[in-house]
Amino acid sequence: EVSFDPKEHQHLRYNPLRDTWVLVSAHRMKRPWAGQVEKPSEEHVPRHDPSNPLCPGNTRANGEVNPDYDSTFLFENDFPALQPDAPDPGSDQHPLFQSKAARGVCKVMCFHPWSDVTLPLMKKQEVVKVIDKWAELVEELGATYPWVQIFENKGAMMGCSNPHPHCQVWASNFLPNEPALSDRCQRAYYQKHGEPLLLQYARQEAEKKERVVVESSDWLAVVPYWATWPYQTLLLPRRHVLRINDLTTEERGGLADIMKRLLTKYDNLFEISFPYSMGWHGAPTGPSLKEDNSHWQLHAHYYPPLLRSATVKKFMVGYEMLAQDQRDLTPEQAAEKLRNLPEEHFKTRGH
Amino acid sequence: EVSFDPKEHQHLRYNPLRDTWVLVSAHRMKRPWAGQVEKPSEEHVPRHDPSNPLCPGNTRANGEVNPDYDSTFLFENDFPALQPDAPDPGSDQHPLFQSKAARGVCKVMCFHPWSDVTLPLMKKQEVVKVIDKWAELVEELGATYPWVQIFENKGAMMGCSNPHPHCQVWASNFLPNEPALSDRCQRAYYQKHGEPLLLQYARQEAEKKERVVVESSDWLAVVPYWATWPYQTLLLPRRHVLRINDLTTEERGGLADIMKRLLTKYDNLFEISFPYSMGWHGAPTGPSLKEDNSHWQLHAHYYPPLLRSATVKKFMVGYEMLAQDQRDLTPEQAAEKLRNLPEEHFKTRGH
Ligand SMILES: O=P(O)(O)O[C@H]1O[C@H](CO)[C@@H](O)[C@H](O)[C@H]1O
Ligand SMILES: O=P(O)(O)O[C@H]1O[C@H](CO)[C@@H](O)[C@H](O)[C@H]1O
Repeated sequence: EVSFDPKEHQHLRYNPLRDTWVLVSAHRMKRPWAGQVEKPSEEHVPRHDPSNPLCPGNTRANGEVNPDYDSTFLFENDFPALQPDAPDPGSDQHPLFQSKAARGVCKVMCFHPWSDVTLPLMKKQEVVKVIDKWAELVEELGATYPWVQIFENKGAMMGCSNPHPHCQVWASNFLPNEPALSDRCQRAYYQKHGEPLLLQYARQEAEKKERVVVESSDWLAVVPYWATWPYQTLLLPRRHVLRINDLTTEERGGLADIMKRLLTKYDNLFEISFPYSMGWHGAPTGPSLKEDNSHWQLHAHYYPPLLRSATVKKFMVGYEMLAQDQRDLTPEQAAEKLRNLPEEHFKTRGH
Repeated sequence: EVSFDPKEHQHLRYNPLRDTWVLVSAHRMKRPWAGQVEKPSEEHVPRHDPSNPLCPGNTRANGEVNPDYDSTFLFENDFPALQPDAPDPGSDQHPLFQSKAARGVCKVMCFHPWSDVTLPLMKKQEVVKVIDKWAELVEELGATYPWVQIFENKGAMMGCSNPHPHCQVWASNFLPNEPALSDRCQRAYYQKHGEPLLLQYARQEAEKKERVVVESSDWLAVVPYWATWPYQTLLLPRRHVLRINDLTTEERGGLADIMKRLLTKYDNLFEISFPYSMGWHGAPTGPSLKEDNSHWQLHAHYYPPLLRSATVKKFMVGYEMLAQDQRDLTPEQAAEKLRNLPEEHFKTRGH
């Protein structure tokens, strides 16, 4: 009788934040890759490009001129998926043809005046400015909107069309699918176990160590036990924190530090500016501000697409779209690789 | 007061098969695209390539030699994500670290001995052979496995590493997330409305016409009201059919016809061999064969990635991964475009 080895034997793992399973088939990494290879990411981005609509002083699609900003810079998305005033599609509907009004705002936030930096290469105090702005936006937009989604698409592979360091903030009059699911799962866990799911999880991971990538006195980044993307990570505070605007000044400094460390490791993995989509999930806002959200714990998800190298990504297609997510290395293998990478960025090494 | 126009005003639509919502923001098609452009798909595939492991007479990775097949050809995936004999990871687990045994088989099926054809370019009788083989596999593997996932990844953009026309069949000892969700949704609908969800839906769509792409006396292909991917379609029989192996000889002929018509339109849209992932969903098998599955209706999902042109796809990233799927044209616009395309394939036009 062969004994179970997660690196050799496929198995399922449960994602308690989504109530779904992932198929872990690590032995599959042995297959040769003859498929699509991505373009290597752009290496020489000019610090200031007069034709880039995100740079200071330049003109955007709608004719507005950016100020000569020297820190973060926030503006309304010129092609918003959510606008504040769309009319209601109307009710009286067949159960198979249901629609609902969607209202909201879409903002873009530049992290820095320079196009040739990214978060891991920015100074700690500059990253703190980004975090402060995130907190401000959740406070402001969350006063009325039930959900404020902060997310960053980084790299052409992730549909990002502009190399200038920036993120987006979409606030909506509805709780989107993913946070709605996460809310249900965290609530059910809290009701059953009397403690927030992610607090219990972080404590366990901090003890077990095998999936930890970076940690500090107040933050923890792990490749979650149920990770779907090859190098997916979950970043969360150790203290019970509901929303990003609840972070103390000290915790914001700690967050800037750990983000720089995590993202430096990401860049060092294949020695490129590592592509990903990331975003923050915290307790719902708007009407939910008046409700008990003790089941929630603030966290960020990082979803990077690369699998084998700087140019070979994981394709979430066929089986994944129709049946179930599948991964080709264990979360423990991914965490170990990231953990063992240097904390000095490959671009500044030896400087 | 402005009246609601789905092409101009963002709104949410409900997907009753997944119990989720999609954000429809059709006005977003107006934004210019400066992002990643895909390589155009390979145009000149040789009919027989001595180095292609899928061609007749060639040697595969494991040293086996393919027969000199002249129709479909089935073999075990040389790098299977599911194997029949993986040991059990063991129980006694914390609720946040749950795993389960995963067992199964992964097969590959070539559609045709030639590498330079695709389903829409194959003869009807050749497509019927593919359908017969699908039915046979569901019958055979479904005798014991609860789920048999037939899927086709087509095109390099969809992670397909081999231009030879083929699909995959993965059978598992578990019901994967997507069919489990679809099962729950169809069951709840049936219990409430006394009729299978998809039968009621097909009847409504056949009457409304605005989302129909192609139809025949026994089949219907629509861009579903809740479509996520720009040109996503749903293909289903008009009669109540639980599984692909329940299709009559006549219905298999009708399926070959409608698949050829649908896929010809897909290819004609941007005049390329249209990339997609597709797969079949029918009532669960194995232990479920003995249960009542009247709530199920057989159907195929087609998920094509392209949005604007042969080289610009829809990126399901950031907001989509963290919050909710979003689409940039209405399902009605997509259906109209496809419906109005010729039914003669651009490659054989004028021949
Ligand atoms: O099995 P293939 O074609 O080698 O691989 C492709 O399809 C699989 C099933 O959808 C995916 O898991 C892989 O990421 C993809 O590259
Ligand atoms: O808003 P952008 O950067 O133009 O667009 C990008 O992010 C959006 C939000 O995740 C996606 O809907 C788009 O498909 C993607 O290309």
